[in-house]
Amino acid sequence: MAATASNKRVILKRYVTGLLSEDDMEVVTTEVPPLAVVPAGSEAVVVKNLYVSCDPYMRNRMTRHEVPSYVSDFIPGEVLANFGVMRVISSGHPDFKAGDLVWGITGWEEYTVINNPESLFRINHPKLPLSYYTGILGMPGLTAYAGFFEVSKPKKGEYVFISAASGAVGQIVGQLAKIIGCYVVGSAGSDEKVSLLKTKFGFNDAFNYKKEPDLEAALRRYFPEGIDIYFENVGGETLDAVLPNMRLGGRIAACGMISQYNLERPEGVKNLFYIVTKRLRMEGFLVFDFYDRYYQFEDEMARYLKEGKVAYVEDVVEGLDAAPAALIKLFTGRNVGKQLVAIARE
Amino acid sequence: MAATASNKRVILKRYVTGLLSEDDMEVVTTEVPPLAVVPAGSEAVVVKNLYVSCDPYMRNRMTRHEVPSYVSDFIPGEVLANFGVMRVISSGHPDFKAGDLVWGITGWEEYTVINNPESLFRINHPKLPLSYYTGILGMPGLTAYAGFFEVSKPKKGEYVFISAASGAVGQIVGQLAKIIGCYVVGSAGSDEKVSLLKTKFGFNDAFNYKKEPDLEAALRRYFPEGIDIYFENVGGETLDAVLPNMRLGGRIAACGMISQYNLERPEGVKNLFYIVTKRLRMEGFLVFDFYDRYYQFEDEMARYLKEGKVAYVEDVVEGLDAAPAALIKLFTGRNVGKQLVAIARE
Ligand SMILES: NC(=O)c1ccc[n+]([C@@H]2O[C@H](COP(=O)([O-])OP(=O)(O)OC[C@H]3O[C@@H](n4cnc5c(N)ncnc54)[C@H](OP(=O)(O)O)[C@@H]3O)[C@@H](O)[C@H]2O)c1
Ligand SMILES: NC(=O)c1ccc[n+]([C@@H]2O[C@H](COP(=O)([O-])OP(=O)(O)OC[C@H]3O[C@@H](n4cnc5c(N)ncnc54)[C@H](OP(=O)(O)O)[C@@H]3O)[C@@H](O)[C@H]2O)c1
Repeated sequence: MAATASNKRVILKRYVTGLLSEDDMEVVTTEVPPLAVVPAGSEAVVVKNLYVSCDPYMRNRMTRHEVPSYVSDFIPGEVLANFGVMRVISSGHPDFKAGDLVWGITGWEEYTVINNPESLFRINHPKLPLSYYTGILGMPGLTAYAGFFEVSKPKKGEYVFISAASGAVGQIVGQLAKIIGCYVVGSAGSDEKVSLLKTKFGFNDAFNYKKEPDLEAALRRYFPEGIDIYFENVGGETLDAVLPNMRLGGRIAACGMISQYNLERPEGVKNLFYIVTKRLRMEGFLVFDFYDRYYQFEDEMARYLKEGKVAYVEDVVEGLDAAPAALIKLFTGRNVGKQLVAIARE
Repeated sequence: MAATASNKRVILKRYVTGLLSEDDMEVVTTEVPPLAVVPAGSEAVVVKNLYVSCDPYMRNRMTRHEVPSYVSDFIPGEVLANFGVMRVISSGHPDFKAGDLVWGITGWEEYTVINNPESLFRINHPKLPLSYYTGILGMPGLTAYAGFFEVSKPKKGEYVFISAASGAVGQIVGQLAKIIGCYVVGSAGSDEKVSLLKTKFGFNDAFNYKKEPDLEAALRRYFPEGIDIYFENVGGETLDAVLPNMRLGGRIAACGMISQYNLERPEGVKNLFYIVTKRLRMEGFLVFDFYDRYYQFEDEMARYLKEGKVAYVEDVVEGLDAAPAALIKLFTGRNVGKQLVAIARE
């Protein structure tokens, strides 16, 4: 057995300011101790990473925070970490054995030693594409599900608007909303995405916000009766355009504000007084608070997929060398569907 | 009987832009038909106005809105209208008779013909000062009660922050919060008001926000553990300073945003991403939605007053000639406690 193994990985080169660039990350290959055996006495597992997910919140972890943020900052020189789909190759933990398929937080690298395997989720529907566990069957799927049902509390027939609608979370929210009988309109940043929304994902309507000089007026056209539920992925100007278009008693499920993540100072949102006059509820949530419902969600979503009730589009790049550029696509809008990186296909 | 009577009234001279000034209003005396008799066949009542209330939302009604707002715009040349305390002097309505004491929407004038007397509330505790029905026993009191209990859903021991805390609504919210065992801090715009908050109203602490160069840092000092409930009266910069100081799962009861009412374009609020990361709920409300609970509220609040459990401070000016200047005090912060106008004392 070799005394060391090689492990390709993506590290953060420096704390990031402004728009994330490839230069902020580096792909390196390091020599690591042999991976087939977990150190004696340890409850760690060693995993082979099959797919890793590109998620917008990773950008927040690349900023240096004086006051600790809701997730810890990445450390320059260290490997990036995020959700992935993995196969256990060795285990010191009684609940895991070599060969097990899991998803959870791992490194942006070929092999990772996971010291807290209790944090991992088992994959119960391995006949569906494993990559789906970075998206529709993983964190973004649960985000859509919990945010839509638990936070926005939809009712049949309500008017739902979704920004970044063709993305990992947005495409699922829209389809769940259709399943329960809502009227759903999404916005996205290219005509190709708009077409996906209308055909593949069955939205009632969709538009390319980059072609709308007056977003507030556009929303008035698409929602002459107003919006009951806004699923907020974008923030900033989009939120400002939505607020005057909300209906009395409307709800804003605040999932994310991606338009702000690369700004040194966030934009100001001006139309907040509508929260008072229209009696709106704007409520933030984090998927982490809903992990206890994951397996119930997994079963329900797997059933929808098997029955063809939901469609799913992902954007897969091959290999860790392509990972930095893939992550950046989220912030330029170049991803079409759920962005992920395939590291190994078995 | 005289063929006409004289009626002093405050009219809106023009739609207002920017900071409200006395010049935007005018006090005039008009001749009106005799008031002691309601026209035959009408269900109207004629009231003598005893007290009228000065409320911040009146400023919103003085702006011309292209898209109808949550309340109708005042009309230049016509009398201002707002909540008041009135004695019925003649009635064509079976439920009202001369001598009845009521409160509700009336004109800023000596006598008003009210065509929809169903909108009026009866005064069930006339031994308490009648002026209280413009404040603690009227609309602002119900606002405080409904906003605090129904919207912010407080629990004993929680940390509560109130802006414009010595005002009509704020002073009541703070005392209700103390009654149920919250820790309460208020901000206000003068040392005199701060002293009222700490002594008369029994807040745990209070500060003069005009003396704080860094409001966010000030809030960190007053709430080292963070804020569970923010009762929002002010908006703008205050909201921006509050957001980073909220605790996980905190609630913002959005009652008003007075700092924005005289601005042509509202300020931008930058720190909204904390709504996501801290899982905050920000919810707007209007007192009108809680009118069905008024009489239950009236009894409870009257009891607190009679038992000495709540204190109440009002700022009374005498006569309609003083009304325009009194209204403006709300926006310069010159009012100390609930601002109202005494028109007649019986
Ligand atoms: N609360 C939670 O627990 C949680 C969990 C997961 C994700 N999220 C949030 O959910 C949102 C969507 O995440 P996702 O994973 O589904 O990403 P995604 O939508 O698949 O990809 C990001 C998309 O955002 C849009 N975008 C990027 N920069 C923008 C800008 N400056 N202005 C407007 N739109 C911009 C682009 O789509 P267009 O071409 O349509 O502009 C881009 O494709 C993000 O805000 C994320 O932070 C929250
Ligand atoms: N949602 C509803 O149904 C409802 C009902 C009633 C009232 N409200 C709202 O509740 C809030 C308080 O109303 P209120 O009747 O109790 O008035 P108030 O507090 O008695 O009087 C207004 C006070 O606001 C403060 N203020 C004025 N301009 C300001 C500015 N630019 N920045 C910061 N503070 C400013 C001043 O106090 P300081 O000296 O402390 O600055 C002023 O004394 C208002 O926003 C009002 O619109 C809402």
